[in-house]
Amino acid sequence: MTLTWVDGYPAAGVPVHDRGVAYGDGLFETIRVVDQRPLLLSRRLQRLEAGCQRLDIPCQPEQLRAQILEFSAALGDGVAKLILTRGDGQRGYAPPRPSSPRTLLLGSPAPAYPREHAERGVQLYPCATRLAEQPALAGMKHLNRLEQVLARSEWQDPAFAEGLMRDMSGRVIEGVYSNIFLISKGVLQTPSLERCGIAGVMRAEILERAQRAGIAVEVCDVSFEALLAADEVFVCNSLYGIWPVRQLKSHVWPLGPLTRKLQNLIADLSSGT
Amino acid sequence: MTLTWVDGYPAAGVPVHDRGVAYGDGLFETIRVVDQRPLLLSRRLQRLEAGCQRLDIPCQPEQLRAQILEFSAALGDGVAKLILTRGDGQRGYAPPRPSSPRTLLLGSPAPAYPREHAERGVQLYPCATRLAEQPALAGMKHLNRLEQVLARSEWQDPAFAEGLMRDMSGRVIEGVYSNIFLISKGVLQTPSLERCGIAGVMRAEILERAQRAGIAVEVCDVSFEALLAADEVFVCNSLYGIWPVRQLKSHVWPLGPLTRKLQNLIADLSSGT
Repeated sequence: MTLTWVDGYPAAGVPVHDRGVAYGDGLFETIRVVDQRPLLLSRRLQRLEAGCQRLDIPCQPEQLRAQILEFSAALGDGVAKLILTRGDGQRGYAPPRPSSPRTLLLGSPAPAYPREHAERGVQLYPCATRLAEQPALAGMKHLNRLEQVLARSEWQDPAFAEGLMRDMSGRVIEGVYSNIFLISKGVLQTPSLERCGIAGVMRAEILERAQRAGIAVEVCDVSFEALLAADEVFVCNSLYGIWPVRQLKSHVWPLGPLTRKLQNLIADLSSGT
Repeated sequence: MTLTWVDGYPAAGVPVHDRGVAYGDGLFETIRVVDQRPLLLSRRLQRLEAGCQRLDIPCQPEQLRAQILEFSAALGDGVAKLILTRGDGQRGYAPPRPSSPRTLLLGSPAPAYPREHAERGVQLYPCATRLAEQPALAGMKHLNRLEQVLARSEWQDPAFAEGLMRDMSGRVIEGVYSNIFLISKGVLQTPSLERCGIAGVMRAEILERAQRAGIAVEVCDVSFEALLAADEVFVCNSLYGIWPVRQLKSHVWPLGPLTRKLQNLIADLSSGT
């Protein structure tokens, strides 16, 4: 039995005229819920509000907060996926004015990732699918995710815990469902997401906590060569925390001390698998 | 009262776990229905099948054909929008294997476009939203349409019947909800859609009928300068047929003879508004 809510009430269906279905016209959040508590909630609400502003979708963060808290209490432990769409529309791309956004909340169990991923690191699949460069949509966790669907379809072998995604110009951007960091000469770097990619809340949290811990951080363009030359590499998201990256094709990175330190710095946010 | 079907039966809702809602993981078609007859149906089924193949969504064209015919008979006259999603999925981008696609059919009245658009031509809004270059998705009428939503949001003034969309490199690609053609020295040209854009069925039909009528046609990259230098320009889609383009910002094109000839060539497919 799965817990699913629409606009704050238990429901299993979305109206067929919802613009989320028609155009992917909306945003989403994947929220780790531990002991009825949604982790990193304030960051998520900030990101949702910023995304709504860019897409010109009306947003009521306090109402969303209340709904997520109530849903998390009902879920207890697991993952709460929030989908926020622009709501119903008539035929045609023009957004209705005003529009009445719709929220979906979908519960699922906490994912059971192998413990070794966090402890010993993972291997990345080199995705052939490239991310298109679209500054108007970059950074947002919007519902237009066919690139990720295509990229994730490229491999079935569980030896690859994640896939590496690059942009059309070859720059390193992110994992299919995570952000990527590298450590070069003691500096913590993560790709700029001004052209494409999703600005994850765990990425933001790591950047902030690292800085507070006195680690030099840098958000910048990252070439494939820079990735290979890095001393340490890791991927992160809100569900598993940090996984060291050990291998991409024939290239091998060590599991270094700064990655371990950062894992400890966010230990309170990890899923505890 | 609107006619809406899900998987061949009257229904008003889509299950919340549908991947159309989650990721825009699917395709759509906007079908003009006249006297219970869906126009250009074979072309549409071909395009759907090609799109499904590229996205690796199972497709049963004969079953789709039967559903569309049955829906069109119930609708009588108007527009049938078909949405084909990959169906339900669990959390995560990886497509379920096998997946069970879902079809939505949404009926609406025939649009009432002003007669003058076809007779005297239209003015284009110069959209600032650019189309990202993504060959893996180019040409398909998929459900990731935030670029079109943003572009269509740029103007409210009904003086602009359509908006012009260019790609990140500045090339002319299409209208927000139509394809674009230009005529230069007697040659009918339309932009290549290898990097972005939607390959419309009316565009394909016009290319084929023009060739059959002995008109030279060319699918090629089109610069903004080439557009301005063209002798005639028009936009087209399956609902309104062909609208001559008369103005973009300060630039004015004449309503030329080849555009009129092509309007006559597709007169059997126009909406008759």
